[in-house]
Amino acid sequence: MTDNSRLIVALDLKVPDKAMELAREIHREIFAIKINWPLLMVAGVGIIRELSSYGRVICDLKIADIPNTNSLITSNVKENGGWGIITHAFTGSDSLAAVIEAAGEMKVFAVVSMSHPGSDQFINSVSMDLLEMAMKEKISGVIAPGNDLVMLRRIRNAGKGLMILSPGIGVQGGNPADAIRNGSDYVIAGRSIYNSEDPLGEVRRINSAVSSVIHRSS
Amino acid sequence: MTDNSRLIVALDLKVPDKAMELAREIHREIFAIKINWPLLMVAGVGIIRELSSYGRVICDLKIADIPNTNSLITSNVKENGGWGIITHAFTGSDSLAAVIEAAGEMKVFAVVSMSHPGSDQFINSVSMDLLEMAMKEKISGVIAPGNDLVMLRRIRNAGKGLMILSPGIGVQGGNPADAIRNGSDYVIAGRSIYNSEDPLGEVRRINSAVSSVIHRSS
Repeated sequence: MTDNSRLIVALDLKVPDKAMELAREIHREIFAIKINWPLLMVAGVGIIRELSSYGRVICDLKIADIPNTNSLITSNVKENGGWGIITHAFTGSDSLAAVIEAAGEMKVFAVVSMSHPGSDQFINSVSMDLLEMAMKEKISGVIAPGNDLVMLRRIRNAGKGLMILSPGIGVQGGNPADAIRNGSDYVIAGRSIYNSEDPLGEVRRINSAVSSVIHRSS
Repeated sequence: MTDNSRLIVALDLKVPDKAMELAREIHREIFAIKINWPLLMVAGVGIIRELSSYGRVICDLKIADIPNTNSLITSNVKENGGWGIITHAFTGSDSLAAVIEAAGEMKVFAVVSMSHPGSDQFINSVSMDLLEMAMKEKISGVIAPGNDLVMLRRIRNAGKGLMILSPGIGVQGGNPADAIRNGSDYVIAGRSIYNSEDPLGEVRRINSAVSSVIHRSS
């Protein structure tokens, strides 16, 4: 994987062989791979280690349990070679602290905002409080929507020094260049890549859209 | 397993053989077994099917993702023979509806309140709203703390017709008889059973404490 890319690819696939094949094809030109529970349930946690042979793997587990359970889940990801883990913050500071402690060197990203319609019922009404709490716990970064630029900018402004990862790119309407311009450090795209006839071409298209913004602003 | 028991045993173990052995020992005298991610990560989801040979298995996954991911997680549990699944509600009605739809005949229980200290920062301040939303989505039941009888009674009163499962029994301070008297339908105990020298004896002790309450009130 490469530090020159700001793209994290969500391998939201249920077929382990397809996930491995896609990783092999695109890993040299992306920043990281993100996987979630449905793949882990089918493949077993060993796939974290297999995918790690290609570089950074972020486990998007949206952990939301009591501190002890959060700690056990995180330790398991760490033992299997994960580079990063995504947890909820909604379950409070002790639950979040348990993830961060068990993670050690592994990066921990907190969900403080989501972008499906139901997010507005509960989680998005406390996004700024979740962010503030997560920063007190010394989180590595947060998840902020790439398709809601108002929310993204609020989180960018309040979250000085945090790494911001933004889903909602591609099929969900977000534009990678706009997300980066509005505060994302890394954009997360899934379907637009793994459902493409030419995944590597799509990766390059996103990388190039992002590069033009970064070079203009630096 | 038996309908005569109101006890759900949390097998929060990381060693699959120990979980299977304990299930074999106690399954005839309990209502259901509850398992969570740390065991599934080590054992693989196939353990849901193995444990199901002893009866009802509730997967306590505290699902908290977007609708599509929630649906995939739930389908996987269903395909492996789960009897019930535990999901969060704070990710909103569409995420919850996705679990309920994918669950089919499987029971779905929503977390509307938790009992670790951090719960009071976010989730417990919206417990009644979560409950109301979950009832609109036709949830089977909810999780309500067996060691916070005030919250338990509020949830019991507002949650007419819902099955209430209560953790926090035993090591976490809750008393099974008090929980049942205050509205729980089933109590969940873990450590007090699996860390006991005599797990079956502990199961019988809880069953008997619960029975005396039920017989007195009926």
